Amino acid sequence: MELWFTEVHNKNSRASMRVKEHLISVESPFQKIDILDTYEYGRVLVIDGFTMLTEKDEFIYHEMIAHVPMAVHPHVKNILIIGGGDGGTLRELIKYPTIEKMDFVEIDKMVVDLSKEYLPFLKSGFDDSRINFYYQDGVEFVKDKEELYDLIIVDSTDPIGPGEGLFTENFYKDAYKALKEDGILVNQCESVYFDEDRKEFERAIGKLKRIFPKTYAYQAHIPTYPSGHWLFGFASKRYDPIENQNILEWQRYNINTKYYNENIHQGAFYLPNYIQEIIEKA
Amino acid sequence: MELWFTEVHNKNSRASMRVKEHLISVESPFQKIDILDTYEYGRVLVIDGFTMLTEKDEFIYHEMIAHVPMAVHPHVKNILIIGGGDGGTLRELIKYPTIEKMDFVEIDKMVVDLSKEYLPFLKSGFDDSRINFYYQDGVEFVKDKEELYDLIIVDSTDPIGPGEGLFTENFYKDAYKALKEDGILVNQCESVYFDEDRKEFERAIGKLKRIFPKTYAYQAHIPTYPSGHWLFGFASKRYDPIENQNILEWQRYNINTKYYNENIHQGAFYLPNYIQEIIEKA
Repeated sequence: MELWFTEVHNKNSRASMRVKEHLISVESPFQKIDILDTYEYGRVLVIDGFTMLTEKDEFIYHEMIAHVPMAVHPHVKNILIIGGGDGGTLRELIKYPTIEKMDFVEIDKMVVDLSKEYLPFLKSGFDDSRINFYYQDGVEFVKDKEELYDLIIVDSTDPIGPGEGLFTENFYKDAYKALKEDGILVNQCESVYFDEDRKEFERAIGKLKRIFPKTYAYQAHIPTYPSGHWLFGFASKRYDPIENQNILEWQRYNINTKYYNENIHQGAFYLPNYIQEIIEKA
Repeated sequence: MELWFTEVHNKNSRASMRVKEHLISVESPFQKIDILDTYEYGRVLVIDGFTMLTEKDEFIYHEMIAHVPMAVHPHVKNILIIGGGDGGTLRELIKYPTIEKMDFVEIDKMVVDLSKEYLPFLKSGFDDSRINFYYQDGVEFVKDKEELYDLIIVDSTDPIGPGEGLFTENFYKDAYKALKEDGILVNQCESVYFDEDRKEFERAIGKLKRIFPKTYAYQAHIPTYPSGHWLFGFASKRYDPIENQNILEWQRYNINTKYYNENIHQGAFYLPNYIQEIIEKA
């Protein structure tokens, strides 16, 4: 018998991976969580039917969401991470000895517990003593915070289900307020290839543009996400992601990366015309 | 009834698109040619079961294979195009009034005939008076050519079937000889995500490196190709694709593009570490 997991991009497009073993399937209070072992992609975390990460290419997403802002802001000491319960973003962030404190806010503790058990390649960050764990809604958490953080990373699911609030204008306003005067917010921002995703990207970028003085999008090649052309938002109070890239300082950290490098940092912001137009209109 | 076309990346991974109509299916003397009309991707050309192009994103491939070398070489007058029977590469090249002559060598005339009939968005280049059409094997065609071309574009299928010869060291040697002293060869070069494709990429880049003084790879986000992270080879006798990029000159052509721009040109050569390592070892 062959077992296949098929992810539905929309009613006209799909991608499928052959499954070695369906390791676990749980209905948490917030979402449906499945973890697969697959032949091509290794272990795969699926939430509400969508691939959140695969062992084969999670490094691309996690390196790009963590190292891009860390290579721009000259002195990140205090970070808020919302979502990212799998641990991949923490794994990258703990490589910076200059970070003093990380508030990690994940609504669904079950994602953390299952990831620790079934996705061991992600878990090295969880034991870092600089992390404070909050298992609650990031939207609520950020409401009463003021000028606390140098960096906020929104490592969320898609804007349906528990991730929805993290794509609202009110959340972005609260996040703006929670950032210091030179703070940066980075978020996973969907993609533009399929209409359904493009609408979410447009809305998210449009909202960020109305709130932050500087808003950009950057891209990465992540094969297991729909279209493989994934986008992140980079909303900033002061720093420009290319002009303020601290190449030499970043190199001094001597961080081993498989995707990110100083050139990719720039290239990630060099978007195709058809995406630039979407951002300009948003 | 729902009709789906499924492309098999390998035995463990697949992508599927819903089909409106299977427009034509032909066995040419060289290969199996199918043209589909699909809901998400528009018209799709399939050869031997592999997606060659879709109406939705063919612009990315064709802009990137044509404009990248054209923006580097300062005076391309004489071009050899091998493959590309669909016409998309020609459509981009005829936008340059400075080109004097294009030798277009396609082994399978049926690809040209069917593309003209079923893929009208590609055909605007075919009527250009600067093109000489040769329906023969590009491997043979190039054998007796010496210092004739400023640019050779190898717009081939995958290295199985009729495209195989276009990935051999002997072909690259003949192409080198057919180029002028400052000539450039650009070729579609597979990808690295799936092992099967990566091996072909490694072999092709390794061969080019042994023959050309300067060999590079550049990338584009092409969602309907396996992994979406597609690579091109850029093998050059003299010019460096970034140092010798003629930004102002290219802008003067005033060519309308949906993907390519002056920044993407650079970003395309900024490869992830894991691809750089493959190239260094090749």
